[in-house]
Amino acid sequence: MSLFITFEGIEGCGKTTQISHLADYLRQLGHSVVTTREPGGCAIADAIRNILLNPDNKGLVPRAELLLYAAARAQHVDEVVRPALNSGAVVLCDRYSDATLAYQGYGRGLDNALICHLNELASGGLVPRLTLLLDMPAADGLGRANRRNTEQDNAQESRFEMESLLFHQRIRQGYLELAQRDQQRFRVIDARGGIEEVALRIRQAVDPLLSRDCS
Amino acid sequence: MSLFITFEGIEGCGKTTQISHLADYLRQLGHSVVTTREPGGCAIADAIRNILLNPDNKGLVPRAELLLYAAARAQHVDEVVRPALNSGAVVLCDRYSDATLAYQGYGRGLDNALICHLNELASGGLVPRLTLLLDMPAADGLGRANRRNTEQDNAQESRFEMESLLFHQRIRQGYLELAQRDQQRFRVIDARGGIEEVALRIRQAVDPLLSRDCS
Repeated sequence: MSLFITFEGIEGCGKTTQISHLADYLRQLGHSVVTTREPGGCAIADAIRNILLNPDNKGLVPRAELLLYAAARAQHVDEVVRPALNSGAVVLCDRYSDATLAYQGYGRGLDNALICHLNELASGGLVPRLTLLLDMPAADGLGRANRRNTEQDNAQESRFEMESLLFHQRIRQGYLELAQRDQQRFRVIDARGGIEEVALRIRQAVDPLLSRDCS
Repeated sequence: MSLFITFEGIEGCGKTTQISHLADYLRQLGHSVVTTREPGGCAIADAIRNILLNPDNKGLVPRAELLLYAAARAQHVDEVVRPALNSGAVVLCDRYSDATLAYQGYGRGLDNALICHLNELASGGLVPRLTLLLDMPAADGLGRANRRNTEQDNAQESRFEMESLLFHQRIRQGYLELAQRDQQRFRVIDARGGIEEVALRIRQAVDPLLSRDCS
């Protein structure tokens, strides 16, 4: 069965770890699983990602940033997500259209109607069946992201991790508002606590969507 | 005085050479001149240009291509063109919004209304005072572009130069239609003949726009 699930949340909320856990779980149940991420997920979109996340590109103007995200999404949807869904896979995607609304809309203050319009164009109308919002206070997430950078001796923080705590608080608030508005599609997952604990919460949100023939 | 002039036309029509000639002419008249090009014209837009023109990126889907052009334009307008105009310069730009309509609209068949909408967003509403369409048959232009590649031992033709003659004929036709529709802004320049001959035709189109104080 094909199923499109997206993961959203602020920096350091644990998306990468949890996607990998959920992928293992689904594969054990016999599902074909494709994990991917935005921006990126294929060579052309990765090249766009490099421009977006390069800390040298501080001068990137908000309109150009928004259009680059849309370009990367259009390529990723057509080249990766739709073919995987057509082949019957479960697609787990790290960030998608909601991230653009949260970061460029709530974070940078760009017009939400404009972002929705570009999201529609970029996604070609493809909407996830389920969006898991991994929620935690912005300070906790940033703390984790900073520790990760230090541990990995990663001097080049991404452009977004250099933003202020206030910026990330606006983004968290934006995500929560989006989830509130579309309760059919969103599940808000408390992302604090141990990895296994959070993974269990996620499985409980996903299980009802799995067809019985595969489980 | 500030003045925004764009150059349009198919591959090999001689834009680069003619921009350089017109820049010399205007500087001799005492104008401050900035020459630039799209896609590109600044570091971030050049990085986007590399993605667009890289022959490896054959799989670039039309929606993503369109959005990348728009992103490069947004950055270029805000970082280069507007500041130059604000400083009182004459800006000579190699390709601008009309190129997106000609290549992505007439060439690739994308929806013209969508392109106009994205052009408006990308340009922030900045419209050239004069657009010089350097016109010649598509076969002549492509012949020149091919000779240039051979002379420069340029094995990597750009993605656009590999397109069919038919594609470039559609683009030429598209440009001529755009010029027909906005005769106020466009001047169609016969781009066949010697460099000096064409340069003279261009000066005759530009001269009436130059304020007398500077000439």
